[in-house]
Amino acid sequence: MIRIGIDVGGTGIQVGVVNEKYEILCEGSIVTHTDIPFAEQIRQIADCVNETTIRAGFSADEIESIGIGIPGIASRKTGEVINCTNMGWHHVPLRDEFAKYISKPIYIENDANVAALAESIAGVSAGTSSSVFITIGTGIGSGIIINNQIWSGSHGIGGELGHVIFDLNGIPCTCGNHGCLERYCSATALIRMGREAASSNPHSGLMKSVNGDLARIEAKTVIDCARNGDPLAVSVYRTFINYLAQAIASVINLLDPEVIVLGGGVSKAGNFLLDPVNAAYPQYVVFRDQEMPPVKLAVLGSKAGIIGAAMLN
Amino acid sequence: MIRIGIDVGGTGIQVGVVNEKYEILCEGSIVTHTDIPFAEQIRQIADCVNETTIRAGFSADEIESIGIGIPGIASRKTGEVINCTNMGWHHVPLRDEFAKYISKPIYIENDANVAALAESIAGVSAGTSSSVFITIGTGIGSGIIINNQIWSGSHGIGGELGHVIFDLNGIPCTCGNHGCLERYCSATALIRMGREAASSNPHSGLMKSVNGDLARIEAKTVIDCARNGDPLAVSVYRTFINYLAQAIASVINLLDPEVIVLGGGVSKAGNFLLDPVNAAYPQYVVFRDQEMPPVKLAVLGSKAGIIGAAMLN
Repeated sequence: MIRIGIDVGGTGIQVGVVNEKYEILCEGSIVTHTDIPFAEQIRQIADCVNETTIRAGFSADEIESIGIGIPGIASRKTGEVINCTNMGWHHVPLRDEFAKYISKPIYIENDANVAALAESIAGVSAGTSSSVFITIGTGIGSGIIINNQIWSGSHGIGGELGHVIFDLNGIPCTCGNHGCLERYCSATALIRMGREAASSNPHSGLMKSVNGDLARIEAKTVIDCARNGDPLAVSVYRTFINYLAQAIASVINLLDPEVIVLGGGVSKAGNFLLDPVNAAYPQYVVFRDQEMPPVKLAVLGSKAGIIGAAMLN
Repeated sequence: MIRIGIDVGGTGIQVGVVNEKYEILCEGSIVTHTDIPFAEQIRQIADCVNETTIRAGFSADEIESIGIGIPGIASRKTGEVINCTNMGWHHVPLRDEFAKYISKPIYIENDANVAALAESIAGVSAGTSSSVFITIGTGIGSGIIINNQIWSGSHGIGGELGHVIFDLNGIPCTCGNHGCLERYCSATALIRMGREAASSNPHSGLMKSVNGDLARIEAKTVIDCARNGDPLAVSVYRTFINYLAQAIASVINLLDPEVIVLGGGVSKAGNFLLDPVNAAYPQYVVFRDQEMPPVKLAVLGSKAGIIGAAMLN
């Protein structure tokens, strides 16, 4: 038996045939088109699933289940996508529409939850029964695993660590609130902090690295300059690490999972991110004289979306 | 069959005999003595359990289980109390010591978790499978129920909503960190805010209500003056409600339980607390166009400690 994992993204949709050992046997992909009708979008995805399944040497009958990870929220009960801005989906019957093409159990889940599940089954947190996965990218996404299951809340609106209030009356957030955690701990936050610091320090290594063009400072720029010892970048990066450490400790103080997993673009900094985070977060844990969750880096990368979706049930 | 619930507190220890309908049939209590040896403390509690059981008309054989709620943390595996400052207990073998007197299953749990369980079984959140209980007292305590079970974390150090970072680099907390949530949402916070405001407004109704003696301003003073329409107290209370609303929305954004339950001293303000909170928190929820958890007042009051402890398993 095989399982199908589908990773829906704003630019492309990845389809994978996954076996019982969580290995991706065969992959397919299509470009995301948001300018065509919903029914046509789904037909294209179903075609890709069928084509990829055949290419892997299986028939549709051998598919045990189909999981779909989306950058949005869905109802587990109805199989409806409630909101998925990148795809232009608002209250669309994804499960019902998909079932017209392939009559197998279909599960839909938020992509951060899917990645959390993948890591907890086949990745760095395999073998644990509870974990919190934090993706550090444009925003902060999160997936909570409790008792080996995704916990996305009673109404499916949980798992939004990025929008926990972290700084009362702080920086305005895209969600309309102020001081949300992702304004301080995301790649976007690191970029903002880097640009602000560089603009006040035109002779810094950070500013020189972009030839004075502030707009060219990305998260990687700050990280690379910090790695190379530029004092300004080191200072900005330390502040960022300190914020992230407080965010992680907050998750531990509330949820105390077996392990915390970091993924997303910023986690590509590897041990240059992990080591200072691991050194900093324990001081913010309330019961700091007790055993506490280790923080680890995600290992499945972009495969997590397919593997986790295939494992949904 | 009956179950024994024990509510351990810094001033007194309450013991209750609870039946299958979650009714307390008989109660006993002893004064907390922290100046006697641990073994003697436990002997006194066991005596009280035996005496109360007999007074309820049962024999020790009819006891199904004994649950102990403590203002601290315990290990579910070993039955050891790891830390319970009010009782002077640090790494004491509570379960083993208690088992010397009564040979029945013994469960030990943090008191906020116990109250959360009690409300979710026999109180305002009865019938729900997930809830977050928030006690607003000297500090902020919390208990998380997921899939009908207490979730206190993998190492037993979770459920500390009061120490989630809420205001980066904010007010120093007793835990050693800065900007913990309980510095803004507890009775202690309301007192601080009331006193600060009154000291700058000596002619306010709030200041007059205590004859100019700032030290006499308690949480109830601010609430009563706000209820009576004193503009300064109204302003302070609105700020407090706004903080609490953001805290509740943060819990929803992360955990999205079926219901949020408010307990503790400040919750005695009743609808004067609940109504403005219910009006304010939805604006801070990310997916605010979706159904979201209602916020309700705890109904079991001081009985929650006994009932919840009796329900531990």
